[in-house]
Amino acid sequence: MNVNGIHYRTIWVKETDRQVIQIIDQRHLPHRFILEDLVSLDDVFTAIKDMHVRGAGLIGATAGYGMYLAALEASRSDSFDTFLAEAAEKLKSARPTAMNLFWAVDKQLEAISSVASADEKISLAFQTAKKIADSDAEYCRRIGEQGVKLIEEISRSKGGKPVNILTHCNAGWLAFVDFGSATAPIYAAHDKDIDVHVWVDETRPRNQGAALTCWELGNHGVPHTLITDNAGGYLMQQGQVDLVIVGSDRTTYTGDVANKVGTYLKALAARDNNIPFYVALPSSTIDWKTEDGVKEIPIEQRDPDEVAFVDGWCEGEVKKVRICPENSPAANYAFDVTPARLVTGLITERGICKPNKDEILKLFPEIT
Amino acid sequence: MNVNGIHYRTIWVKETDRQVIQIIDQRHLPHRFILEDLVSLDDVFTAIKDMHVRGAGLIGATAGYGMYLAALEASRSDSFDTFLAEAAEKLKSARPTAMNLFWAVDKQLEAISSVASADEKISLAFQTAKKIADSDAEYCRRIGEQGVKLIEEISRSKGGKPVNILTHCNAGWLAFVDFGSATAPIYAAHDKDIDVHVWVDETRPRNQGAALTCWELGNHGVPHTLITDNAGGYLMQQGQVDLVIVGSDRTTYTGDVANKVGTYLKALAARDNNIPFYVALPSSTIDWKTEDGVKEIPIEQRDPDEVAFVDGWCEGEVKKVRICPENSPAANYAFDVTPARLVTGLITERGICKPNKDEILKLFPEIT
Repeated sequence: MNVNGIHYRTIWVKETDRQVIQIIDQRHLPHRFILEDLVSLDDVFTAIKDMHVRGAGLIGATAGYGMYLAALEASRSDSFDTFLAEAAEKLKSARPTAMNLFWAVDKQLEAISSVASADEKISLAFQTAKKIADSDAEYCRRIGEQGVKLIEEISRSKGGKPVNILTHCNAGWLAFVDFGSATAPIYAAHDKDIDVHVWVDETRPRNQGAALTCWELGNHGVPHTLITDNAGGYLMQQGQVDLVIVGSDRTTYTGDVANKVGTYLKALAARDNNIPFYVALPSSTIDWKTEDGVKEIPIEQRDPDEVAFVDGWCEGEVKKVRICPENSPAANYAFDVTPARLVTGLITERGICKPNKDEILKLFPEIT
Repeated sequence: MNVNGIHYRTIWVKETDRQVIQIIDQRHLPHRFILEDLVSLDDVFTAIKDMHVRGAGLIGATAGYGMYLAALEASRSDSFDTFLAEAAEKLKSARPTAMNLFWAVDKQLEAISSVASADEKISLAFQTAKKIADSDAEYCRRIGEQGVKLIEEISRSKGGKPVNILTHCNAGWLAFVDFGSATAPIYAAHDKDIDVHVWVDETRPRNQGAALTCWELGNHGVPHTLITDNAGGYLMQQGQVDLVIVGSDRTTYTGDVANKVGTYLKALAARDNNIPFYVALPSSTIDWKTEDGVKEIPIEQRDPDEVAFVDGWCEGEVKKVRICPENSPAANYAFDVTPARLVTGLITERGICKPNKDEILKLFPEIT
């Protein structure tokens, strides 16, 4: 999407040198817009591990390009195969719970081992990395194409008045290669000149809404307002929200949605006020094995310091301030699960469906 | 309640000099515990206006003592009555929406005008101020006495295992003279050796939970854990919450509860998980005129910078960090209204009742 009027993806090949991969170093957002050159396996490892890039789709795409850079290095090493196998292990260890990371690395290993010469391996690794990135963007674009219909309908029923959409966390283009999941329908609507306005939950503890979603919506020119995570219920009571769209880290085939903690509270408020609550997701995040999301999906507990401290811009740099007494313990549950009964529908790259097994399988008949 | 093992109220008369009123300067909490001497009307005006003290009960008590200090000054002025009348106006202007402020000042004006000599006026002003403070503490103590029964019952049913109580914002002793409203039953339980543990919502944007509730619970020795406002729903789904107790800024006689923004979301989650949701309030905060709280109670919109910036301790001082892009607008809705249908019961100084007109009037028959 656009930054200062120029179209960016979150990752791309440098135009003048295809041995250089460029990313937005997201650690500095929203305060500074800094690009970074990745020229080695080590660069990619650090970028994933230290969260210069984050978000399932983007981690996968970065790992894809990481394996391409590793292939370049492997061709200069004593043993191509040994170097590449070690590179794969190293990349996988960068974020050990990111499914897309494993998937992308394995996809590259398979591709690279299918041809014989180093030159062919490098060439195929490059094409595969590009394909992984392009298909991530294309899936998100299709989610936008599907989801924009919902926004168009509300816009029509409101006689063209702004459609107020609430979103939680950052399921935006910064988490993917382009478009995003929850934001894809919003960008599609905005680019079609439909009047939209987004309420952005700040999304404590890591504030991805305040830092990333606000930044990307603002840079693309989408009207938005930052609110606290506490405010959404009030806005819904007051008729200030027409539609909720969130992303998903994992959706069971029965329609339960694991997403950033606090999503469940917004789903409850949407239900209490008869507001449609949609979840946008590429089908790669559907969990085809888990039946009861609330009971079965393990919820990551992260560092309590993310709750006790807040990062922000102060005196020309990012500082960390403590918001509680030094002795007070904190707990940091990172996700929650919204049961299917509170979800109006799932927006996938193949279409919109009700959150239940039968409807989901109708869109993905190849699974049965 | 206790701070470092010593019992404090939020406001008191200096033991060695009854012309000096002492408060905890709450602006520095939780990072520094600083007492302040108030020796003049101007000191009290500043303490209320600049929020050295806050919370309905405490503002009222401080204003009561402010009128006593004003009476002392009036006796040294050219005209006692003129000075006192001006003092009353000045104090009322310090926080123009604080009902208790008006009530306490008017109560003092009435008392002071009922006697003739300056000495009598000063003496009666002192007694009245003390009575206002004492009765605030006594009402909260009774709320504790009533509410502790709920906790005792849960403790019994759990065979003495810790009772997990979730609270939002700071309806603690720091907001009153002692005990607090939502915290009073918790302190009463703790002081009776009932095993309790409190989940403290941080309560963005002003973080009164993280800063004040954690501080006061910690200092009194009550086990507690700071969580983000987003996490309560997850904890309730997982059976980690036995009881929710919150305070109230205004409760309609029909049982609708205006409280810090985000309260409504917790009430929804409590209902969805069959967890009792109680509101603790001194009856002075019951609104005997408003029928439909959701539609009729006006919600204060505060400075958007409270959302865009977070205050905290950094490098030995309190700093303010910006969490969003400079250009992103923010909105700051300070309260929300929880409809009576989501409230299990009201804990008042006279007893616990269902949140409806008939039950509330049974406890307060003098109103009809």
